[in-house]
Amino acid sequence: MRRDEFEVNDPAVVRKLLKECDYGVLSLMSDNEPYGVAVNFVAYEDMICFHGAYEGRKADAIKTHPFASFLAVSPQALIPSYFSDTKSACAATQFYISVMIEGEISFTEDSSFKAGALEAMMQKFQPEGGYIPLHTEDPAYTKMLERTAIYVLKPRKTSLKVKIGQNRSKEMQQRILKNLRERGEAADLETIALMEKYL
Amino acid sequence: MRRDEFEVNDPAVVRKLLKECDYGVLSLMSDNEPYGVAVNFVAYEDMICFHGAYEGRKADAIKTHPFASFLAVSPQALIPSYFSDTKSACAATQFYISVMIEGEISFTEDSSFKAGALEAMMQKFQPEGGYIPLHTEDPAYTKMLERTAIYVLKPRKTSLKVKIGQNRSKEMQQRILKNLRERGEAADLETIALMEKYL
Repeated sequence: MRRDEFEVNDPAVVRKLLKECDYGVLSLMSDNEPYGVAVNFVAYEDMICFHGAYEGRKADAIKTHPFASFLAVSPQALIPSYFSDTKSACAATQFYISVMIEGEISFTEDSSFKAGALEAMMQKFQPEGGYIPLHTEDPAYTKMLERTAIYVLKPRKTSLKVKIGQNRSKEMQQRILKNLRERGEAADLETIALMEKYL
Repeated sequence: MRRDEFEVNDPAVVRKLLKECDYGVLSLMSDNEPYGVAVNFVAYEDMICFHGAYEGRKADAIKTHPFASFLAVSPQALIPSYFSDTKSACAATQFYISVMIEGEISFTEDSSFKAGALEAMMQKFQPEGGYIPLHTEDPAYTKMLERTAIYVLKPRKTSLKVKIGQNRSKEMQQRILKNLRERGEAADLETIALMEKYL
């Protein structure tokens, strides 16, 4: 990362973002070219797990090049240029948090792990329940567990980027905060909390 | 795309999504590995334009491997498994629209194009104005235009994926629609409109 001031080491924020993001983008190598796909995911046993098919472009890419980059993003407030009391357009930006995880990706054939990852995914996306819990023992899921591919990304490097105006002067940060408070939308309040925590 | 039923040819929807998405994920090749980064962008003169620096991992990746995949996503309703009147977890999913653009990526040194792309970006993100319009003639922007890199992705292939239950039976689609109407959140209403348009 060129701008080191945006890099933050905060595992709790990484966990929160991975829990709250519905989807991320998995960058793979397909026919020697980069290829990005949106995937629902869950953090499970210190890995990032996805589900899909054993066939198709995504599966083929993983089989031929088992290294991937995964990005989950929490977009923050849009900052118009005039929040910085300037007539120049240059000050316009969008703040955001992102987690990038780079590592090896592979299919797992461990059906108990597969069931565990899918159950973790259900608990993430459907915490209210209303389904038969996923277990290898349950005959309702035997065929599905065979048919469904679980891709596992083992983190080699995890980078958290929190871009909230660290590159601005203290005076500009205060102007931006004041303007965010005045606008007061939901995304603004979240951004204000981040700025107050990290700046 | 393995599931052809999700692929849709609708340039108007592509344009709308590119206009409404604040950011996308640019998948590049960095040191022979896939590398995905979040970028604000604008569709300008039939290309996708980003701005950034001439140095850093992203710039280096583009210099060494000038082919990229760009993904913009409009996440749609989360569909709990019980929307399909089943006790099996398998029916749980998230609907979404995504546009994937694959093509050559490069820096442009045409300062008039650079100013045009940045002005288009301002009109996208700050349509209310409040800044000096970006022109090469304006001395306020001379240094910024030199310093700022504009990356240009020329589409070789554009794929629109609209995943809204095309793989379900007509009966299941009707059940999902009924449940979405009952839940009635903002994302649900958008998803209902898409289902009514495409199914």
